[in-house]
Amino acid sequence: MKKILIIGAGRSSPYLIDYLIDSAKEQGWEVCVADISLENALARTGKKPGTRAIAFDINNIEQRSDEIKNADIVVSMLPAFMHLQVANDCVKYGKHLVTASYISSEIAALDKEVKNKGLIFLNEIGLDPGIDHMSAMEIIERIKNEGGEIILFKSYCGGLIAPESNDNPWGYKFSWNPRNVVLAGQGTAKFLENGQYKYVPYSRIFSETENISVEGYGSFEGYANRDSLSYRKIYGLENVETMIRGTLRMPDYCRAWNAFVKLGWTDDTYNLEINEGLTYTELLRSFLSSEGKNIKKELAVFLNEDENSKTMQLLDWLELFTNKKVRLKKGTPAQVLQDLLEEKWKLKVTDKDMIVMQHEFKYRTQDSRLKTRDQKVVASLVVKGENQIHTAMAKTVGLPAAIAVKNILLGKIKTPGVLVPVSKEIYLPVMEELKKMGIDFKESIS
Amino acid sequence: MKKILIIGAGRSSPYLIDYLIDSAKEQGWEVCVADISLENALARTGKKPGTRAIAFDINNIEQRSDEIKNADIVVSMLPAFMHLQVANDCVKYGKHLVTASYISSEIAALDKEVKNKGLIFLNEIGLDPGIDHMSAMEIIERIKNEGGEIILFKSYCGGLIAPESNDNPWGYKFSWNPRNVVLAGQGTAKFLENGQYKYVPYSRIFSETENISVEGYGSFEGYANRDSLSYRKIYGLENVETMIRGTLRMPDYCRAWNAFVKLGWTDDTYNLEINEGLTYTELLRSFLSSEGKNIKKELAVFLNEDENSKTMQLLDWLELFTNKKVRLKKGTPAQVLQDLLEEKWKLKVTDKDMIVMQHEFKYRTQDSRLKTRDQKVVASLVVKGENQIHTAMAKTVGLPAAIAVKNILLGKIKTPGVLVPVSKEIYLPVMEELKKMGIDFKESIS
Repeated sequence: MKKILIIGAGRSSPYLIDYLIDSAKEQGWEVCVADISLENALARTGKKPGTRAIAFDINNIEQRSDEIKNADIVVSMLPAFMHLQVANDCVKYGKHLVTASYISSEIAALDKEVKNKGLIFLNEIGLDPGIDHMSAMEIIERIKNEGGEIILFKSYCGGLIAPESNDNPWGYKFSWNPRNVVLAGQGTAKFLENGQYKYVPYSRIFSETENISVEGYGSFEGYANRDSLSYRKIYGLENVETMIRGTLRMPDYCRAWNAFVKLGWTDDTYNLEINEGLTYTELLRSFLSSEGKNIKKELAVFLNEDENSKTMQLLDWLELFTNKKVRLKKGTPAQVLQDLLEEKWKLKVTDKDMIVMQHEFKYRTQDSRLKTRDQKVVASLVVKGENQIHTAMAKTVGLPAAIAVKNILLGKIKTPGVLVPVSKEIYLPVMEELKKMGIDFKESIS
Repeated sequence: MKKILIIGAGRSSPYLIDYLIDSAKEQGWEVCVADISLENALARTGKKPGTRAIAFDINNIEQRSDEIKNADIVVSMLPAFMHLQVANDCVKYGKHLVTASYISSEIAALDKEVKNKGLIFLNEIGLDPGIDHMSAMEIIERIKNEGGEIILFKSYCGGLIAPESNDNPWGYKFSWNPRNVVLAGQGTAKFLENGQYKYVPYSRIFSETENISVEGYGSFEGYANRDSLSYRKIYGLENVETMIRGTLRMPDYCRAWNAFVKLGWTDDTYNLEINEGLTYTELLRSFLSSEGKNIKKELAVFLNEDENSKTMQLLDWLELFTNKKVRLKKGTPAQVLQDLLEEKWKLKVTDKDMIVMQHEFKYRTQDSRLKTRDQKVVASLVVKGENQIHTAMAKTVGLPAAIAVKNILLGKIKTPGVLVPVSKEIYLPVMEELKKMGIDFKESIS
């Protein structure tokens, strides 16, 4: 009897766990859900037959090694920085590993050992990264097979709120790890634009956005993400002239978020001085160089905004100009901001979130008379969630990972190593199954 | 015979080594100068009697422990991140340690062990940090003894170029570690202004400067440095309402430097894509969101500058708008910038550098009828260098450390622990000796 160990039963796990419980039932496998909170784990397994729910502390070395020893495959849905301990145990005890996170250099360094032991460490198999890689590779392979040369690739994705549940001016609620949203964009974005390398520091990422239209859903704003350059090699696009991967937000979001960046309020490297009763207005005063007697006006001047601008309205909606008190007793600027936003951007029980992903390709073909022709493909995916628990985010992050776990256990994925899903062996069956479940891209060619 | 081991014979070491060689001659001690380059070490010892010069690799564990074992006191003039290895060996072998660098949390953590072994690890005993602490403490103690309560403390220091050697529009040449100049200000500056905590992120440090006048030397610009708040406790200024420590530059420097910050050109966290023959103009294009066809004009627009503004002239003087080629084959944006600046901001053989330090205190006294009175003290230090080697920087960094080394060996400094020079036992004799050598503050009280 094969045993699947799922570590982490948070926001992104419901569909993953449901899918694997169903597969386990069919195949006679066992599913163990391990979470720091037993209640969380039990809520996901529902005590169904063939399941086990346990309270699990990743730092309890004995428990961690016992559970990993006892499994055939491990799915780590923990925050990315926690994967390494799990990965090291998986190497030690010879177990497969699946995560939906970006490969860290430490995990990448395990490649040789993982291969030697014939193991599969499949990463970046969620939504973004995950479905983005797989759907892009499908189209890239098709264009290459048709003899086309890809000269442009832009890929944007956002975890947003469905229009019918959008009742706040930011057009945003948390459907996944709030910390990642607050820290998003830190570092430098690197991409390629018309053959020119472009480097955009954090201080400019939210002001140098691109307008992205998605048919049937209107306009979004995209900001550049991390290192797009490294994906040229991974995708086999060494000669591409424009290559950018980014994140989508509703209009107005990026400009208003940039206020926090300018203020320094997203810094996570030092603890604020938090006196008893500190209000948001007082804290805001600490981030402004002016005296802060008329805080709203001075902030507008600092941001070069009209006092009634959309950005100022968004900030006002967060109660920054009131005597609302900071709840945390200790914390970095980013942690204090996150605490406020978790209150303001909370998904209500019946709220529906919405995933939007869109790829744009331009490619060049030659006809028999060597005449070149440029064409464009736009492929879009929109998935809406059902409610606060069964979110589009959980569905699109969890199902690719779940399907991959099943395929590894069934021996359909055989190639060992530390992998991302850009080989046909991995992405073809996953994408096929996702399509059947309604996670399907719409394409337009022009 | 007592043995002094000096590790690092770089820019800041000449006066330190000369002073300790002279003291050693008087006292019958031995001085060993260890540097990665034997030539450097020999240039400093001049093969004088009682000295030894050695080629020394800090990563050669055997050599490092042998030399430290063999010494009574170690002076580390290495870059700050290299001190820890030396410090650990000093604990292990029971040797005193002196550095001119900020205490890192790792070094601070050695305090208990250092105390248990009766050792003295004296840090921050150079110029800034160093003379700033000691000269401030002298005045703070005096004011307190007079019954005054300090309500404001501002302290600025800069390693600049003397007016007579100032032949470039930046008003700046390298008199110490160029890397530190390029990375200066990264992080968040924290200070206190009229009772209000202020946090200034890197993106604003060079635009939110203060004008500082030094009598006889005109106007300078000061930008805030690191964490000024932690010095309230160290200086015993828990009730101060304004507390800021900062760095001085010539006028125009900060605004022009901020161009590099805005562009992201001071980032040291990723390697640039450097193709054969890359020019500075091409690289500049990578940091701009616009196409860069008319690079100078587009940069001016990006910076919100007139095309002939002072800032644009300073950037132009660095040949950013020419076909000048990037020399490094590999490097971060900061490293590539540093390489250019090391060429442009090189101290000529006969150039004189200049150290400027200025403290401002405001304090409140009560007379016998409980009437309060506010007074101001301004204390300024200006030191000019002799030439490219015997710089004011080397003098003011090296002499305090050298005097402290002598006093430790003579038993005049007795209190063990990981220390900074804010106790009278340390700063009184050092300041007295510095005064005799012409490093003397001018004070005005109003």
